[in-house]
Amino acid sequence: MTAIAISGPGGPEVLKPETRPVPQPGLDEVLIRVAAAGVNRPDVLQRMGYYPPPPGASDLPGLEVAGTVVAVGPGGDPELLGQAVCALVAGGGYAEYCVAPAGSCLPVPAGFSMEEAAALPETVFTVWHNLFERGWVGDGETVLVHGGTSGIGTTAIGLCRLFGIRIIVTCGSADKCAAAIALGADHAIDYSAEDYVEAVKTFTGGAGVNVVLDMVGGDYVPRNLACLADDGRHVSIAFQRGMQAEINIADLMRRRLTMTGSTLRARDAGFKALLADEIHKMLWPRLAAGAWKPAMDQSFALADAAEAHARMQAGAHVGKIVLRI
Amino acid sequence: MTAIAISGPGGPEVLKPETRPVPQPGLDEVLIRVAAAGVNRPDVLQRMGYYPPPPGASDLPGLEVAGTVVAVGPGGDPELLGQAVCALVAGGGYAEYCVAPAGSCLPVPAGFSMEEAAALPETVFTVWHNLFERGWVGDGETVLVHGGTSGIGTTAIGLCRLFGIRIIVTCGSADKCAAAIALGADHAIDYSAEDYVEAVKTFTGGAGVNVVLDMVGGDYVPRNLACLADDGRHVSIAFQRGMQAEINIADLMRRRLTMTGSTLRARDAGFKALLADEIHKMLWPRLAAGAWKPAMDQSFALADAAEAHARMQAGAHVGKIVLRI
Repeated sequence: MTAIAISGPGGPEVLKPETRPVPQPGLDEVLIRVAAAGVNRPDVLQRMGYYPPPPGASDLPGLEVAGTVVAVGPGGDPELLGQAVCALVAGGGYAEYCVAPAGSCLPVPAGFSMEEAAALPETVFTVWHNLFERGWVGDGETVLVHGGTSGIGTTAIGLCRLFGIRIIVTCGSADKCAAAIALGADHAIDYSAEDYVEAVKTFTGGAGVNVVLDMVGGDYVPRNLACLADDGRHVSIAFQRGMQAEINIADLMRRRLTMTGSTLRARDAGFKALLADEIHKMLWPRLAAGAWKPAMDQSFALADAAEAHARMQAGAHVGKIVLRI
Repeated sequence: MTAIAISGPGGPEVLKPETRPVPQPGLDEVLIRVAAAGVNRPDVLQRMGYYPPPPGASDLPGLEVAGTVVAVGPGGDPELLGQAVCALVAGGGYAEYCVAPAGSCLPVPAGFSMEEAAALPETVFTVWHNLFERGWVGDGETVLVHGGTSGIGTTAIGLCRLFGIRIIVTCGSADKCAAAIALGADHAIDYSAEDYVEAVKTFTGGAGVNVVLDMVGGDYVPRNLACLADDGRHVSIAFQRGMQAEINIADLMRRRLTMTGSTLRARDAGFKALLADEIHKMLWPRLAAGAWKPAMDQSFALADAAEAHARMQAGAHVGKIVLRI
């Protein structure tokens, strides 16, 4: 099969087509003939050499795919054969065939193209677990998410609108703010033009937000904490401005804040299957009803994966970037 | 009535007897003729001028009392009259009479002296809420608590033993370690002789602890986080070494750690009543059955409150210091 491999750490140009053997599904795994693969920020970090695949995972990039199940591993359910699925994978998505744990597969929702379905798993699983489970956000609460037009940001906007949660996002330009509002954000703050902490306070009438879903880290962390209401939760999913953060314990105690975070890729198949079940039950019926589709930025041919990465790094995209296979 | 007031910020000598009017119980409050009052670290901080009483609270020190209900405020339950109770109060405990919210009163457990009962509320409410509720520690888990012979430390040892939780404490000397072990700690680390992070790793076979209940703050925070197992919780209740702490967001994400904390004194009466109900239901039957009594260090006459503070600040005490009234 043809796959896109990382020939060595570096810029987008290190992504090169290679011929690889078709992988074989193991216990509780399926083989998917990939129709589309999502491109995510961690793929860029992996390409640069900053985010090695976890033990046992493919060295090929790609954390989510959509396609057709063409083989089922030992002990697997033969009914999966021939089904159109999207799947969260720990690597190997940039390829014509990809192995996925059966428990990480979800049916392609009715009315979704393969490209749209491939844009779901990574950000939906990440936002779902971190916002609803780790951040236990509830009806009528308010969330702050940075990068409102990113894959995570646009997915957070979609899920918040579906579940009655108010969402404030930050973006780097007025155009991106307008795009985030068009997607359904309740408020978008242009961080290049104003201090987001003050803007959050103003928009919430001084109350602050209940949850911050943070991809920025570093010096944003204390500023994020300043945005939180009493009993607020700060959930970290990345640290684009650095992993070290200084926090004030007295303030954490006084306002009963909670800080947590997680990585998705390294979790075991059992956890991912539970999360997939929950999402299937709670979200999939709404997708089939047409209540939300992921914001699609642009799709590229598999051979043009380098261009897809260049587009993500340029930062001009709104929503998901996908490879067509 | 006679009360001990803080004549100005300073050493133990600023604690001076004063004649004050007997306070009047308001809505949902009772008046207690105090038989004994617990002495706690926050009283020392208040005396030094670092911990002002919250709005509406007495300016007199004292966060817990035991005694007899001698008056009930408007709308209160007359059946409380004459009952022996211990109570969490937001201030005013160092006095012959003290007002308490009815919901913060618990009966003096069978077999407890007034002094023992006065030693319960502040540390039991604090440890209960932070260890079980904020830190959601469960059966078979392991906890780390600094200051194993302090009021908080000895209460944590007692509650952990009652509820099937393994507890590691740190202390500043071999003698205090021996005292903590005698009280039931599973392991005591002399932090003056060894690195507690390494000692925790060794004792837990590399696994780490599930919860750290931390009174130290500052540079202990990253060291505490290093003691946590995956999915571990860090709960702050004080910051004796400083309120600023540097944390590593990548580590927090990778190991799915949670940091939180709280202060008890400033919480509203409704919260304290809920907490008191929970403790009454879960802990009081065990106290009445003789399963645990607080570790009592020494008691002092009310007039000798300055000596009691000097003893606490000297740091040689093991367990609770109490005033007899």
